[in-house]
Amino acid sequence: MVLATLDLLRRSGLTGAGINRVVADSGAPKGSLYHYFPGGKQELTTAALHEAGDRVGQWLADVLGRPAPLADRIAALFAEAAARLQAGRFTRGCPVAAVTLDLDRQDAGLRAVCREVFDGWQETIAAGLDGVPEDERLPVARLILATFEGALVLARAAASPDPLLGAGRSLAGLLDGRGPVAAPPAGRGRRRG
Amino acid sequence: MVLATLDLLRRSGLTGAGINRVVADSGAPKGSLYHYFPGGKQELTTAALHEAGDRVGQWLADVLGRPAPLADRIAALFAEAAARLQAGRFTRGCPVAAVTLDLDRQDAGLRAVCREVFDGWQETIAAGLDGVPEDERLPVARLILATFEGALVLARAAASPDPLLGAGRSLAGLLDGRGPVAAPPAGRGRRRG
Repeated sequence: MVLATLDLLRRSGLTGAGINRVVADSGAPKGSLYHYFPGGKQELTTAALHEAGDRVGQWLADVLGRPAPLADRIAALFAEAAARLQAGRFTRGCPVAAVTLDLDRQDAGLRAVCREVFDGWQETIAAGLDGVPEDERLPVARLILATFEGALVLARAAASPDPLLGAGRSLAGLLDGRGPVAAPPAGRGRRRG
Repeated sequence: MVLATLDLLRRSGLTGAGINRVVADSGAPKGSLYHYFPGGKQELTTAALHEAGDRVGQWLADVLGRPAPLADRIAALFAEAAARLQAGRFTRGCPVAAVTLDLDRQDAGLRAVCREVFDGWQETIAAGLDGVPEDERLPVARLILATFEGALVLARAAASPDPLLGAGRSLAGLLDGRGPVAAPPAGRGRRRG
C-alpha cells in the first residue's frame, strides 16, 4: 500500500493519491488499509514520503560516494534522474515536491514531513561534497537540491530530459569553475577561473 | 474567476482548484462559469496559467531590466519571491509548477500550457542576461529558472524564506565568479577566480 501510494504521489501528488485509488492500485482490501493506517490518507502519505526519503537518500549517497570528480558526480545525479524520468515517460516526478505544492492550510503535519525529507537530502548531499570547503557545503547542497527539484519540474512539463541534463551540466560546470556551458567531461580542455 | 482559479492553483494545485471552490471563491454564479469557459476546469486552468505567465513574465523582465549588476538582479529575483511567499504565509507558490506535478496522463493539453509558460519565462530571463555571452544565455536562464522553481518548493516546505534567499545568493555568486557563499553586496571584498 505504501508503494502504491508513493507511485500515485509521484504521478499526480495529493490529487492522485486518493484512498480509493490506493486501494485499487495496491489490490489490498480497504479494511486492511484502515487497520494498518488508522490515520487514513495523511498517515499513508507520511509513510510514502518517508519511504521516498530513504530511497532517494540512499541513491544520493551512492552517486556522490563514487570515485569520480565532484562535477561528474553532480552531473550524474541529474543525468540519472533524467533517464529515470524518461523511462517512466515523464509521468513520475518527486513525490515530496508534488505533496508540498498540493498542501492546503490544514496540512501542517504533511508539510513538516516534506521539510524533514528535504532537510535529510540536503544533509546527505552536503556529506558527499568532499573538496568543497566545510562552511560552503550546506549552502552548495541546498543550491544543488533546489536546482535538481526545479529541473525535475521543468523536465516533466517539457516531457524531455533536456532541462535536467542542461541544468546539471551548467551547475556542475559553475561549481567546477568551468562556467555554465562547460564542455562535456570528455573535452575538459576549456577551463576557466 | 480566472484570478480566483489562479489563487487556488498557487495554494494547492489542481487538488485545490475544483470548479465548486472556484465558484465559491469568485462569487460568480456557476452558470456564468460554463458560459465563459465551456471547457470547464481545463479551460479555466489554462486561462489562469496564461495569466500567471504574463504577470510573472512582466515581473522577471522588470527586475532583470533594472540598472544594477547582473548578480544583484538575479539575487533580487529570489529575494522578492521570498518576500512575497512570506507575505502570503508560505501558502502560495508557483501555479505552473503545482499544475505540472499534478498532471495525470490524460492532461496532455495542460502539460503543453505549462511547458509554454516555462519556455516563455526562460526566454524572458535569457533576454535580461546582458553581460553573459550570447550562446550561454539560454542555458544560464534555464539554470536560473530551475533553481528558482526548486527553491520555491523548498521554501514552501520549510515555511521559511531561507531556501530562496540562500539559493539566490549562491547562484548569483557562482555566476559572478565570487563562489557559492558570496559575501552580501555591501562587502564585495571576497572575490575569487
